[in-house]
Amino acid sequence: MSTDSRLSVAVVGAGYWGPNLIRNFRTSPDWDLVAVCDLDSERAQQTLGARSGVDVTDSVEALLARTDLDAVAIATPARTHGPIAEAALRSGRHVLVEKPLSHDRASAAAMVDLAHEEGLVLMADHTFCYTPVVQKIHDLIAEGELGEVLYVDSVRINLGLVQPDVDVFWDLAPHDLSILDFILPGGLRPLGVAAQGADPLRSGRSCVGYLTLPLPGGAIAHVHVNWLSPTKIRQMVVGGTRRTLVWDDVNPQQRLSVYDRGVDLTQQSVDAVDRAASTVSYRLGDCWAPALPETEPLAAMVAEFAASIREDRAPRTDGAAALRVVSVLEATGRSLAADGALVDAGLESADAALSRGSRLHDLELSR
Amino acid sequence: MSTDSRLSVAVVGAGYWGPNLIRNFRTSPDWDLVAVCDLDSERAQQTLGARSGVDVTDSVEALLARTDLDAVAIATPARTHGPIAEAALRSGRHVLVEKPLSHDRASAAAMVDLAHEEGLVLMADHTFCYTPVVQKIHDLIAEGELGEVLYVDSVRINLGLVQPDVDVFWDLAPHDLSILDFILPGGLRPLGVAAQGADPLRSGRSCVGYLTLPLPGGAIAHVHVNWLSPTKIRQMVVGGTRRTLVWDDVNPQQRLSVYDRGVDLTQQSVDAVDRAASTVSYRLGDCWAPALPETEPLAAMVAEFAASIREDRAPRTDGAAALRVVSVLEATGRSLAADGALVDAGLESADAALSRGSRLHDLELSR
Amino acid sequence: MSTDSRLSVAVVGAGYWGPNLIRNFRTSPDWDLVAVCDLDSERAQQTLGARSGVDVTDSVEALLARTDLDAVAIATPARTHGPIAEAALRSGRHVLVEKPLSHDRASAAAMVDLAHEEGLVLMADHTFCYTPVVQKIHDLIAEGELGEVLYVDSVRINLGLVQPDVDVFWDLAPHDLSILDFILPGGLRPLGVAAQGADPLRSGRSCVGYLTLPLPGGAIAHVHVNWLSPTKIRQMVVGGTRRTLVWDDVNPQQRLSVYDRGVDLTQQSVDAVDRAASTVSYRLGDCWAPALPETEPLAAMVAEFAASIREDRAPRTDGAAALRVVSVLEATGRSLAADGALVDAGLESADAALSRGSRLHDLELSR
Amino acid sequence: MSTDSRLSVAVVGAGYWGPNLIRNFRTSPDWDLVAVCDLDSERAQQTLGARSGVDVTDSVEALLARTDLDAVAIATPARTHGPIAEAALRSGRHVLVEKPLSHDRASAAAMVDLAHEEGLVLMADHTFCYTPVVQKIHDLIAEGELGEVLYVDSVRINLGLVQPDVDVFWDLAPHDLSILDFILPGGLRPLGVAAQGADPLRSGRSCVGYLTLPLPGGAIAHVHVNWLSPTKIRQMVVGGTRRTLVWDDVNPQQRLSVYDRGVDLTQQSVDAVDRAASTVSYRLGDCWAPALPETEPLAAMVAEFAASIREDRAPRTDGAAALRVVSVLEATGRSLAADGALVDAGLESADAALSRGSRLHDLELSR
Repeated sequence: MSTDSRLSVAVVGAGYWGPNLIRNFRTSPDWDLVAVCDLDSERAQQTLGARSGVDVTDSVEALLARTDLDAVAIATPARTHGPIAEAALRSGRHVLVEKPLSHDRASAAAMVDLAHEEGLVLMADHTFCYTPVVQKIHDLIAEGELGEVLYVDSVRINLGLVQPDVDVFWDLAPHDLSILDFILPGGLRPLGVAAQGADPLRSGRSCVGYLTLPLPGGAIAHVHVNWLSPTKIRQMVVGGTRRTLVWDDVNPQQRLSVYDRGVDLTQQSVDAVDRAASTVSYRLGDCWAPALPETEPLAAMVAEFAASIREDRAPRTDGAAALRVVSVLEATGRSLAADGALVDAGLESADAALSRGSRLHDLELSR
Repeated sequence: MSTDSRLSVAVVGAGYWGPNLIRNFRTSPDWDLVAVCDLDSERAQQTLGARSGVDVTDSVEALLARTDLDAVAIATPARTHGPIAEAALRSGRHVLVEKPLSHDRASAAAMVDLAHEEGLVLMADHTFCYTPVVQKIHDLIAEGELGEVLYVDSVRINLGLVQPDVDVFWDLAPHDLSILDFILPGGLRPLGVAAQGADPLRSGRSCVGYLTLPLPGGAIAHVHVNWLSPTKIRQMVVGGTRRTLVWDDVNPQQRLSVYDRGVDLTQQSVDAVDRAASTVSYRLGDCWAPALPETEPLAAMVAEFAASIREDRAPRTDGAAALRVVSVLEATGRSLAADGALVDAGLESADAALSRGSRLHDLELSR
Repeated sequence: MSTDSRLSVAVVGAGYWGPNLIRNFRTSPDWDLVAVCDLDSERAQQTLGARSGVDVTDSVEALLARTDLDAVAIATPARTHGPIAEAALRSGRHVLVEKPLSHDRASAAAMVDLAHEEGLVLMADHTFCYTPVVQKIHDLIAEGELGEVLYVDSVRINLGLVQPDVDVFWDLAPHDLSILDFILPGGLRPLGVAAQGADPLRSGRSCVGYLTLPLPGGAIAHVHVNWLSPTKIRQMVVGGTRRTLVWDDVNPQQRLSVYDRGVDLTQQSVDAVDRAASTVSYRLGDCWAPALPETEPLAAMVAEFAASIREDRAPRTDGAAALRVVSVLEATGRSLAADGALVDAGLESADAALSRGSRLHDLELSR
Repeated sequence: MSTDSRLSVAVVGAGYWGPNLIRNFRTSPDWDLVAVCDLDSERAQQTLGARSGVDVTDSVEALLARTDLDAVAIATPARTHGPIAEAALRSGRHVLVEKPLSHDRASAAAMVDLAHEEGLVLMADHTFCYTPVVQKIHDLIAEGELGEVLYVDSVRINLGLVQPDVDVFWDLAPHDLSILDFILPGGLRPLGVAAQGADPLRSGRSCVGYLTLPLPGGAIAHVHVNWLSPTKIRQMVVGGTRRTLVWDDVNPQQRLSVYDRGVDLTQQSVDAVDRAASTVSYRLGDCWAPALPETEPLAAMVAEFAASIREDRAPRTDGAAALRVVSVLEATGRSLAADGALVDAGLESADAALSRGSRLHDLELSR
């Protein structure tokens, strides 16, 4: 640990997302940012500014050889997450990884296993899970305000196609899947995965994608991700037996609306002969838009990383959650290859693997 | 024909949709509404008002026995469309049918065949195809303003579940499919149909539905229909190589927006080794919202019905178009039964059937 | 009275607004529309349609000579309201008048006086007061949900300038003023009237107008009316000590929002020396959008006209209310002539005149 | 000057706005931030962070005694702008002042005079004038796209009331007035000022304010500022003879809309006798939403400060512009005291004072 009560951290990767981590670790009361590592050390220096006292290095090895380092935050391309995280964990450092945890399920599972063995925190930066609106959605569901979840429909579309060899599912859907994992009671445990994609520009990977996740109890989750939309739409509808909420993330004036409306079915009168309209009734009640605090999600995220280390517990978005997300993402590829057929996400085996894990992850999840 | 130059018409069915047809035939300069037929003749009379001079009957037989009738408009439950239309066509009347044309593909095909044989107009009331906004979308695509269509995403959700034994696909998707048939160059000819549905309320049929239609050339169309949404969303995005449009039907202030934005891919530098981000460029241009006239779509629809009869030509939304819509709807059922697998819609055999048709339908379509 | 229990009515004027009255009287269970009077009797006939049983006349005299007429509804240009209403009242008919009640205060007052003397209902068609949203706003204020009203800001702008010799205040502000009269406890009783207008197109009258109404207790109402706006904005904010509501009439998805937000001032610590920011606190509570029924305001308006006649009571928007509206409108002209100076609306003398009225209008107002 | 080509600057005041200036000067390629001055030096240090190399002082005297200082940026309460700016100018430093330039017109005029005498840049931080949207509005008007400006309606409302002894006009209207000064051809030169205010909470100053500014040629500008609104509305409509624009600053998806709509008056047929509706025609054309770059306005503002110093010219928002804004603000007080009567803003005498100024300010303004 660093000389005072702060934990010391280094950020690896100063490209697209790294500067956000750097900014938040720098201003966090929990953390002391001691170094930034990037193959392009000039880029790292520019991010820090001329007068900072933070070290810059272009070598992960040199970084991990430091003796004043408690944790490492990784914001490099997904393919490199595995090796860097493994080296950091083996050197005894807690690890935070940008989403997705890895580019395939095997390496993600290996990271989770290694963290278990070493008794270290492995956390994914599933940023949306630290926003006030997603926290509120989680709470509304957990407190039963929506009743049972009937469906979740998520749309996340805007101009994209920025990364080579990553399709729109791997680029955008980690957000939706990590949110689903956080808000659904029991986490992200679909009965299967069906994916439909299109590559109308012939870019070599899906640019428009639809993901269907049948859920236990007849419910369904559906995700629309799209790189070719001229407007940014980020909307999630969560329908419940009691109420239904609409989260419109591009409307800062009313991000979250909870509708006391729905369809009620009188079950007893529904039979094979007379499934008449008279058995249906509507609740056309009021809409309610809860006030949400204006807090910075990344600040909450780095605080949770520090708290989970200090309290020796699993963080909100731990390696197990991130592995479920990666498992579903990998399943999309198999479904796409099978013309959209429903495939298994292999979440049971993931759970089995986790059950061998360390005491750290046997702790009750915070949700 | 009636004494003056107007065509005479009767409306069968004064339930949910019939009154709209009655109102528009009554005020149309092309039509003389002479009778309304409903099993509940009191309901028919109430719709007309106490002082009207329009006849009321509860018998289709009696109605068709009249000698002053040129055409019949059918707004009864879908299961009854076939028999009523057949009787009307056999008695020599032109026929307009509320959407969907029929409750299955076989009866719809039989209606189309019979109209061909008799040389009569068979038209579907695909109302949205007569709105100024859909007309404008059709024109923008036809004139090449969007370039090639890359994807269509349509969302049509609100509180529903009003009809027994009809699922959400058959209730709502005819709108989206008939619009697709009108605006897509070549009409609605998907390479297959994949449908995912959910019935979380255990109502006995899908209340939430997703429909994926791969299109020729790598394009894709997707439709989301939902009876359980507390808010009404009616939005269609049509992405093209040149421009992309967004139609938001619940925003009367700006129903249609055309974005001069998109992703451009420099194809030549895309190879297996280096599909780098540098080959991608963005157009971040202006948005344009064309002024749209405020006209009543049903007035335009009944005018087209009259014009197609007088000009002895196929109407804009003819039986062939309606059969394509019903064919896709029937395919959703087969895909649902196969866990969402891609199934064939049988549109080629539909076309083959049509090629046997009468001279009337060999005429150039208006679009 | 007509043979059955319905009241009989004639509409005078089949121009812009008349057809709406005709449609609603025709379908009302309370009314029997027996005649329509317009100088252009062909226009009147067209509005009714070919098969109606309603009489058409071009003579008010002939109309009033009928023996089967209980009431007259006047939808002619404002300048002609006075003479027609006077003739109708003198012939013993109850009278409904399109807004504004008249084109000046003197003739409006004379109409009110005459109705008093004759013991007949004189009602203004202040349509907005019969909408569900305005009824709800009235109720929220009356039930104390907003606390004391601090300010009202009303914006009503769109492309206009349709009538000769009427400025934007007389054309549009009657809506805002009649709403204020209905929702404010005690009705429309400003301490003065200040108006600012502009005629940048040199049309000969104000096309852009701002109206300021200081209210008792330090509150203020302000109205912005504008004929030159390309977009339609119809928004009213009513700020209260407890809550504040926003009515956005062009957003049918959420017409009314009630915010549990505001500024609280701790009065005791506010003195001349230290009016410090620490005495201010904010309530940043939730927003609530009440469900509103979808009812036709004109149907409710004609029902209230019938009810007030049958129950021998003042209607919701009676002559006295309409006279207050006209008094404020006339004051805008005096303020415009005085460069926007605050002028008196003469509402006390209007009240004095009313105190001489008949028993009919001594009845408790429904609000 | 500092050792390299950067200009050196110190920020005075690290309260509400100062940190924004500090952040932008720190990251600007034009500037070297050498010191921050605040009576509360701990607050200044916190804003900078523990590892910065920027000096902190609590003494303006000590600050101005430095030999390495080219410019001073002042972000203290408005009452203190005058003395600090005077000291800085007398010591030969260029000065940037947070809005408003000063708390009264006399001290603002003295600051402008002194800067003239000393040949130094005096600039106001009218931040909105450096946003891409206001720049675009300025360009559209300057290029004649709107035609002649007929009216400007500006609404700026949200929960406020944060500062003691400053009313809502002085707090919020500087934004609207500085924008008007920048976008109107000829700058902010109203024919008079009329203000209506209300203090329904008895806070001792206006919390709701309306400002009317008759403009040359029959045009009008109107500003609504309000501290008691639960929702943030920031909307400006600029109506022109050719087109009209709507700027909705809380809609990041479509901040600026340009409507090709309006009212056309055929002037020749308008006479005293027959100002008929037939002389009015409407243009109901398309709407166009120009793409706007996403740039940081404060970065552009500090760049303009540096450029004006280097090029020895008046900056975009120079002292003369800021004095016009303060002159109008001071006139609001006189109008409020006279019950909203139209008062003179004394802009001619302001111009006369400026005509005595140094060569620096004779340069052509950039607009």
